[in-house]
Amino acid sequence: MTLKAFRGAFLDFVDDPFYASEADSVRYLPDGLLILEDGNVKTLGAYESLRERCAGLSITAYPDRLIMPGFIDTHIHFPQTEMIAAYGAQLLEWLSKYTFPTEGKFKDKAYAQEIASFFLDELLKHGTTTALVFTTVYPQSVDAFFEEASRRHLRMIAGKVLMDRRAPDFLTDTPETAYTASKQLIEKWHKHDRLLYAITPRFAVTSSDEQLRLAGKLLAEFPDVYMHTHLSENVNEVRLVAELFPESKGYLDVYDRAGLVGDKSVFAHGVQLTDAEFQRLSEAHSAIAFCPTSNLFLGSGLFNLKKAKSVEAPVKVGLGTDVGGGTSFSMLQTASEAYKVTQLRGENLSAFQALFLATLGGARALSLENTLGNFEPGKEADFIVIDPKATPLMARRNPTAIAPSVAELADQAFATMMMGDDRAIHATYIMGELAYENKVYKQMGGA
Amino acid sequence: MTLKAFRGAFLDFVDDPFYASEADSVRYLPDGLLILEDGNVKTLGAYESLRERCAGLSITAYPDRLIMPGFIDTHIHFPQTEMIAAYGAQLLEWLSKYTFPTEGKFKDKAYAQEIASFFLDELLKHGTTTALVFTTVYPQSVDAFFEEASRRHLRMIAGKVLMDRRAPDFLTDTPETAYTASKQLIEKWHKHDRLLYAITPRFAVTSSDEQLRLAGKLLAEFPDVYMHTHLSENVNEVRLVAELFPESKGYLDVYDRAGLVGDKSVFAHGVQLTDAEFQRLSEAHSAIAFCPTSNLFLGSGLFNLKKAKSVEAPVKVGLGTDVGGGTSFSMLQTASEAYKVTQLRGENLSAFQALFLATLGGARALSLENTLGNFEPGKEADFIVIDPKATPLMARRNPTAIAPSVAELADQAFATMMMGDDRAIHATYIMGELAYENKVYKQMGGA
Repeated sequence: MTLKAFRGAFLDFVDDPFYASEADSVRYLPDGLLILEDGNVKTLGAYESLRERCAGLSITAYPDRLIMPGFIDTHIHFPQTEMIAAYGAQLLEWLSKYTFPTEGKFKDKAYAQEIASFFLDELLKHGTTTALVFTTVYPQSVDAFFEEASRRHLRMIAGKVLMDRRAPDFLTDTPETAYTASKQLIEKWHKHDRLLYAITPRFAVTSSDEQLRLAGKLLAEFPDVYMHTHLSENVNEVRLVAELFPESKGYLDVYDRAGLVGDKSVFAHGVQLTDAEFQRLSEAHSAIAFCPTSNLFLGSGLFNLKKAKSVEAPVKVGLGTDVGGGTSFSMLQTASEAYKVTQLRGENLSAFQALFLATLGGARALSLENTLGNFEPGKEADFIVIDPKATPLMARRNPTAIAPSVAELADQAFATMMMGDDRAIHATYIMGELAYENKVYKQMGGA
Repeated sequence: MTLKAFRGAFLDFVDDPFYASEADSVRYLPDGLLILEDGNVKTLGAYESLRERCAGLSITAYPDRLIMPGFIDTHIHFPQTEMIAAYGAQLLEWLSKYTFPTEGKFKDKAYAQEIASFFLDELLKHGTTTALVFTTVYPQSVDAFFEEASRRHLRMIAGKVLMDRRAPDFLTDTPETAYTASKQLIEKWHKHDRLLYAITPRFAVTSSDEQLRLAGKLLAEFPDVYMHTHLSENVNEVRLVAELFPESKGYLDVYDRAGLVGDKSVFAHGVQLTDAEFQRLSEAHSAIAFCPTSNLFLGSGLFNLKKAKSVEAPVKVGLGTDVGGGTSFSMLQTASEAYKVTQLRGENLSAFQALFLATLGGARALSLENTLGNFEPGKEADFIVIDPKATPLMARRNPTAIAPSVAELADQAFATMMMGDDRAIHATYIMGELAYENKVYKQMGGA
């Protein structure tokens, strides 16, 4: 049994601030102590009340920092890392012009390993500790990703991409090979170490009826694996899906008929959803990955977060960077762009709401709320150390490193999310072990 | 006579890429040499063709960098530096809740000096060498700004804010004091060193008819000073202006009746402009400062850049950060958000178009195209050294530091504008003198 202790200001969420009051959802300890046992949370409380329980234990102290649960990115493509910020196209053209040629390189496992390693370094550097990840159609790219994630003891979810049409030959499988390869990968990787598997049809456009049907069959055989796909991102895409599936009532219905809409289903985007589709997602306990930098960059539109977070028909929502359609690995920048999307809709998004989406909200979207997402006892201790004064401008905007109250924290956290990027991530811990440290800083001495 | 020479890859614009072809507008020298004489451009050309002209001259070489004219920010508020990223409001509420209390602090000249110094450091760090700047209603805040800008030998344009109503008492002047104080400041600062003056009514909401009329009188008396104000940013603002000026045909007409719409007039935003107003701005040779991060952050809307850059009725356009309504000092991030605005409108913006807006386009918007904005002989040599590989992700996206062709440069420049921030600014030169250098780098030895 290994005990560890960390002292600093702690922020996490114990309920959803879209529905519960700030007092009932935000937990803030300006001088807190987090005690871990074998990499899991043993307890979090005020330093004064807990100090006696860790007599003899060395304490890692971060006196001018804010400690939060690690960020959870609910939608990202590891093979698109190198093609981030590709110019001048909306979704369908962007896929054929940039994405498919790039993904073709991942047939080479060594290349896939190199990019997986770089990708995971970027995630940790940006404070993201868990992600739901698209790979490519090649099983070896899935292996490469999981091997790298396993080496780092990360809780990651990924799966082989299924595509059997409307893509280059070198990137397509068949309904049967997709089924068989996915099944083998599930047996190999699902629940191996901290890894989890997601059945991953790219989207309705590139999967035949039969491929979707077999994906649904597989999901029924392995009900605790995830289903991860794209949904209603772009107007032309929605139109094309309607043409390709004339018998369906709509885009979501294509997946529903195949048995792919359930409580482990995560749909990226949902920018163009109808009211009835929101309703259906709510009933099915499915989740949406809201990807604002991508939705703006590809000109897809403004996601209706208010509708998803309605009282009448709540839908689970997480934030996603959607690299490489998204323009940054930073969940802080993603939260910043989420705010802009809500402002353009005449709505609003507090820092606590945004940071909830990036942590416990993401955990709920990924059905991991009993495993991680906040500092409740027994949860896995993936956490990050944030510097609210990471740049001269942030230091001027946030003159007090430790907010004395929740009200002041709300303002500081908002400025940090609007202006912060990887520079604001001082350190990232995985299961209580230091996994990344910003070289600009030196860790401060223990108290 | 002092000669200096710089070697590297050079990019500037010799015409407007919204109208002229790439071949006619983009000048790219993968291995170029820039020769300066007393801080002004003497010549720019291929290194091989010019090397003999600088025998005996020591050359400052930047072998893996892109050298461009300094960025021009056509709309920014120096007193709002510390209140950047203020939460949860659209324009009119944001002004009364955050802006006015902050601007009140600038009655204290020492405070204004401190912020002016910090502000100018931030501009240089982000590669911005010229800006059109809002100060506050207090003449001492104008003095503080110009004194700091003069100390740094910067070409800056600013002026006292005029507000005689709908603002706190401590922030209002009168039509007469506004006129008199502005006149004194023009005589003191306009064309002092590199400084220029702008008559600066905040916007129609906070200036009475009489104040606008006297501002127009002053502009007529000093026709070579600028007029800088806000225009048609937000729907509620436009509605309020219509109520306050029932005799006017529209928002722009309020300024027009006061004689404030001319070829030295720069209007920030213009998100809500009518077709007739675009037409009038074109006829008057006035300019618009397009401020995308601000327009998204305050939820103002999506500026119609395509309309402004039409062939039929072209309007001069520059980019503005609009700090503190804008969320970044970086003109690269501003260009990135400009791209997102055009994508959401189903339009497009190439890197060359965006970088034109940030350099020569800004110079034209500020009637400074004969003074700076590119490397034409005789122009002031304010320039920046860009690192297209400033972060590990940028280095992976831009594996070749020096693009071998304009086509490859288009892609590299786009990735740099989408992902770059102050880290991509290696150095900033003012009149040929090093004014800022990123401490992460060491300047490379001269060839």
